[in-house]
Parts: sequence; structure tokens; C-alpha cells
Amino acid sequence: MRSVSIIGVGLTKFGEIWDKSLRELVAEAGIKAVADAGVEGKEIEAVYGGTMASGRLIGQEHIGALIADQLGLNPIPAHRMEAACASGSVALRNAMLAIQAGEHDVIAVGGVEKMTEVDTAEVGFALGGAGDQETELFHGATFPALYGLMARRHMEEFGTTEEQMAQVAIKNHKNGMNNPSAQFHKEFTIEQVMNSGYVASPLKLLDCSPISDGAAVVIIAETEKAKKMVEQPIEIIGSGQASASLALTGRSNLTGIEATGIAAKKALDQAKLEIKNVDFAEVHDCFTIAEIMAIEDLGFFKKGEGGKASEQGKTAMDGEIPINPSGGLKAKGHPVGATGVAQAIEVTEQLRGNADKRQVKDAEIGLTHNVGGSGATVVVNLYKRA
Amino acid sequence: MRSVSIIGVGLTKFGEIWDKSLRELVAEAGIKAVADAGVEGKEIEAVYGGTMASGRLIGQEHIGALIADQLGLNPIPAHRMEAACASGSVALRNAMLAIQAGEHDVIAVGGVEKMTEVDTAEVGFALGGAGDQETELFHGATFPALYGLMARRHMEEFGTTEEQMAQVAIKNHKNGMNNPSAQFHKEFTIEQVMNSGYVASPLKLLDCSPISDGAAVVIIAETEKAKKMVEQPIEIIGSGQASASLALTGRSNLTGIEATGIAAKKALDQAKLEIKNVDFAEVHDCFTIAEIMAIEDLGFFKKGEGGKASEQGKTAMDGEIPINPSGGLKAKGHPVGATGVAQAIEVTEQLRGNADKRQVKDAEIGLTHNVGGSGATVVVNLYKRA
Repeated sequence: MRSVSIIGVGLTKFGEIWDKSLRELVAEAGIKAVADAGVEGKEIEAVYGGTMASGRLIGQEHIGALIADQLGLNPIPAHRMEAACASGSVALRNAMLAIQAGEHDVIAVGGVEKMTEVDTAEVGFALGGAGDQETELFHGATFPALYGLMARRHMEEFGTTEEQMAQVAIKNHKNGMNNPSAQFHKEFTIEQVMNSGYVASPLKLLDCSPISDGAAVVIIAETEKAKKMVEQPIEIIGSGQASASLALTGRSNLTGIEATGIAAKKALDQAKLEIKNVDFAEVHDCFTIAEIMAIEDLGFFKKGEGGKASEQGKTAMDGEIPINPSGGLKAKGHPVGATGVAQAIEVTEQLRGNADKRQVKDAEIGLTHNVGGSGATVVVNLYKRA
Repeated sequence: MRSVSIIGVGLTKFGEIWDKSLRELVAEAGIKAVADAGVEGKEIEAVYGGTMASGRLIGQEHIGALIADQLGLNPIPAHRMEAACASGSVALRNAMLAIQAGEHDVIAVGGVEKMTEVDTAEVGFALGGAGDQETELFHGATFPALYGLMARRHMEEFGTTEEQMAQVAIKNHKNGMNNPSAQFHKEFTIEQVMNSGYVASPLKLLDCSPISDGAAVVIIAETEKAKKMVEQPIEIIGSGQASASLALTGRSNLTGIEATGIAAKKALDQAKLEIKNVDFAEVHDCFTIAEIMAIEDLGFFKKGEGGKASEQGKTAMDGEIPINPSGGLKAKGHPVGATGVAQAIEVTEQLRGNADKRQVKDAEIGLTHNVGGSGATVVVNLYKRA
């Protein structure tokens, strides 16, 4: 099978970007990515875009064509993929498949979401569409509630504490201080997190990732071609995707996301690696409990020990396995459709050695973990220098 | 490159299906398709779903995972693709690429839309998201208005008449009489069409396709494997996709859809065929003018002669080139995300010789033409018996 590498990256600042529309955000990220790759528009053969809820959030569907249009890339094929908060990674994965199929050699993959044009209630409803409308959202179970249920069960079964969850927030906000693109540049104390007020018990405001605008674009190419195009392509050496029941009620347990383990195994098998070979990871910390479950489900720590590992600093920049050097969704921000592509960008910058103050030492193998909804879709990718 | 064939098809009735939800529709079509292919669920390796506006229409995103869930197919990878009314074809095309990449051998591709749970104004707004929200929909240009502008220009440049457009409706409703799955089983006279009242001049009510619920699922497989699985696989021998400006204002002319010609050329080149080799076609007649433009842009007739050809019966079942034997979007119905997959099903049934009273004689090569929005995405596929 043909191999695929990232040859260019472009990211907007994440945050409440009042003065830029979705199309302006994606154009900004796209222009940066094209410049970074040193390619001309005519070299790009297709567009894949990930966006979750643009229909509800800005009244706009047909986002693949919109991205091609904004980047001046017509008439190449343009696609939008949606898998809730994993939309960006699913777009990246299908663009990879299109290259592996021999259909294309160079593709632009964009992720974007514009979330601040409607009120927070509408955002909550739109995001609720990532879960099960009929059995969850209709009855009021928005996403903080769903992850709150998972957190409560994790506490019950493993003794995980609210203080341990708070440590995830503290660590990711600390990492985010070194990321110029991050939504927040602010550190928090454990008292501040613990006193930040319940959103959906046991999750407090500072356990939750924010509502964000932002866009991320990567240019990918067949690896042999990529080596001729740029000095240091970053190769995607393994990729796995798995699905699960849309609703929590259909899962066999609430203390983890089964699809994470399945996707990770597939990615690791493809790369012929074990999880211990991974040097750092960008994981889907939409809530602090989500990071704790992720580092367990990926196999970095045993099930039930993620909270303690976080408390002990094992996931810090100088810990056993740096998790979310970018600041994660928690501090970097979470424009849902952009998140998966932004994770790929962070890993690329780390492996290029371009991550400046947040550089992971001796980074050889990076991992991204992107979750849709409460775990009905998970994509795990592995990367190394080509 | 590996070849891909259709091995099973399943379609719900299209129409105002008050007693079935989106998930029930997709399950019904999926069960039919699996039974038709004679496969077990465990043989299916991935799901691709096409849906346009489920976020606005039923508050549900994450449709790929929902389809996998409804069909009991977890934990295989599940994807939703969206390219407005071409969503179904884009899903089918990317599922093909995943097989061609060697990632999978057997995939379920679903298209579905549930459009009757909200009022017509909301449907109009949701569908408007297929065009340009900022420069079209915001100013009131819903889809009948956009196609009305194209019709007016076609009349101005080529002398196309409202009576000629009416003939498209009359022919497609006649064809639909023989399609048990069609939304409408009713024939119309030219007087009825001409007196049906303007929706957006020159387009009248009976120039417009309806608002529909429905689902369509096909099972596809790598062709060599497909031959061992079913008696008569239907091979997809060519596929092309192209994009254009989201807004009409970005197009060089309004009398055709340029992306149709580009996509058709790619599909024909891949199949090593000319358009004259095609025996029948399912084209995107969301409005009668759209069919007239399609048969010109595909090359069945010269630009400007589509109206006259329709009037002369050249596109009837016994004409030079039967167009929309299924009844088309006009009579069969247009649940937008399902339409592209339903077109593939009609071609499959025709090539299998299963189309009963609407069977095209000596059908060897079939074509599908699926348009997103006012032409910002077009997919053209070609099929023959494997």
C-alpha cells in the first residue's frame, strides 16, 4: 500500500474569533499550509474537509465545495466528512485512502468550525447531535452530562477523584502557555479548578474544553513524492478507526471508550509498534475525564490508573509520556471539526522539532487520538519522520 | 487499480413517511441490501453514509456511526459524507476508493434523509445551505430561485420554453408510474403542469422535485470477490467528481453546470467509453431545467438543444436515450442524502434486468449523474455487468 506523509501545515489561532467567518478561517489556514508545503494550488488534486455542525451553527452545508472555492482550487473533487468531533481525523484518514488508492498524489485536508455565531444553548444542542438525539439529547443529556456520567462511574469503580481530574486541566493549561495558537494563555491552581462550579457534576467549568472558532489545514502527499517536495515529510505510519453505539446506553461499560482500544490496536499493528514505543500523544481531552480514559484505553496506563498517573505528573512535559503538549482541547481550544487536523499539525511540528518552548525531547513517534461524540467514532494515527 | 462492484441493493419507499424515523428508514434499506447481497453483517468491513442536513432537519449529526449502530455493525469504521444533494454519490465514491486502496473488501454505503419532521420553511433554509449562505440564502435565494435564474437564462440564450420544461415533468411522472418505490404515482397533462402555479418564475410547482423521506443502501465489494459472492455483480467502470464555485455568481455562465462536463469526461475516460456508448441515465432532475442542462452537459445533446430533445420525446423510455427510467427525483422523490445511492440502485436493477415495467431494452451501460447544490459538486458514475 502507498504511504502518505504530511508536507505542509496551517493553523489559525483558536478562540472566539469574532472578526472572521468560517470561510475566512479556512482560507487563512489553507494559505499558510500551502505556503508551508511550498506547493502551488494546481498541484493539489482534491480537498477533504472535516466540519461537524456548520448546518446548525452557520446555516451552511456543502463545506467541501466551500473550502475548494475559498482556496481557489475548483474544479478538483471536494468532500466534507462528518463524524462529530472526530470529523477532522476522518477527513484526514479518507484523504489518505484516496492517495493509497492511487486516485490522487497530493491532497489538502481541512478541518474547521465556527461556533460563536449562535448562542451557547444552540451550540449545546448542535453538539448534542454527536450523541443520540432520541435517547440522550431529547431528554436533556448534553455532552457535559454524558461525560459526567462516565466520570462518576470512573470514580465509583476506580476511586478516581475530582482532584485528579483537576490535575489534567492544570497540566494542559500549563502546556498551552507555550502554544501561541492556543485559545487560553492562563494557568490555574487546583483551588481555582475545584472552585470553578459544577457544569454537570462531577465536572466543573474548568474540567470542560471551551467553545471555539478555528481552522486547521494539512497538505498530504504520497511519501516518495513528498520526499522530493519538502525537506522533512512527516509520515503517517499507522491509522485505525472504530465505531461504537451512538448512545452511552448501548455500551458495555462507561469507564472507557472501547473504540479507542480497537482503533489504537489497528494503528499500532499497521505501524508494527507497541504503545511503549510512542514518545508523546495528542489525545481527545474534551473533558478532563476524557483524557484520563484515553491514556488508559490507549494502553499508556492500566485501566483505573489514569487519574493517579495524572496526579503524579506522569503525563507532564517531563513525565513518562507527555500528553497534549499543545495544551489539548482544554487549553488550545476545540473548534470541533478542526480538532483532528490540529492534532496532526501539533505532531508534525513536534516531529519537525519546531515546537519551540513546548518541544518534546527526543520525539520520534507521535500519536493522535480523536473522539467523536461520547466515543461512537475514534481515530488513532501514528506518525514519524519519513 | 482494484475494481469495485455492487452486490446488493436496498431501498425504502420514498415519500412522506410519517411513521418511520431516519434510523428506521436506514435500517429498513440496510436489511434489504444485506439480504439482497446474501452477506452476513460480519462480512461488512466499513460503513459510508451520505446525508445532507440531518443536523438542521432532525438535530442529529454523526450519521455514519448511527448507521453502523442501526445495522449492528460496530465496531467497524463508519463515515458520513456530505456534499449537499450529491452526498450519497460522494459516499459511494469514497467507499470505492477505500476498496481500491486495499483497506477494505466489502462496504455498506447508505444514503438517507428525513425531511418531513420540520416545516417547509425550515427545509428550504436547510437546503439553502447547499448554496452560498452569505451571498445567496441570506438574501432569500432559496433553491427554486437559483434554478429559476438558470432556467430564465437558458430560455433567453437558447429559446427554451416553459412547455419544453413541462415535458420533462410529464415524462418523469409517466416513468414513475412503473416504479413501486416512487413517491408519486400520478400522470400529469401539459395543461396541469403549465397551470401549477409559479414557485420561482419560470419554475412552477410541477417543475420542482418534492420534499421526501427515504433511504437507500448498496453493498459494494472488490470485483473479483464480488463474482464469488453473487451471480451478477454490477461493476462501477468509471467515476468522476468535480467541484465549482458554491455560488452562482462565481460561475462563468448560468446555462449549464460545468462540473458535470468535467466529471463526465473523467468517468468516460476511466471507462474508455464515449457518451454515445451509454444506454440510459439517471440524472439529477431536482428541477425540470436541471434535467435539460444535464442531458446537454453530459453530451447526450448539444448545448441549447435539451429542451427541444425533451419535447421531441428523445429522452423517453422508447427514445434515443432513456433518461430517468426510475421517474427521477421529480416523481421518485428526492430525500437528498439518499438520491445518489438510489440512482446507483436503479442502474443496478436495470442492468440486472430486474426493472420490470420500466426496464430499458438492451441496457448494457448505465450512467448516474448527481448534483450537489446548484452545481458546486457533481459526481458521474458508469456501470456495466461485471
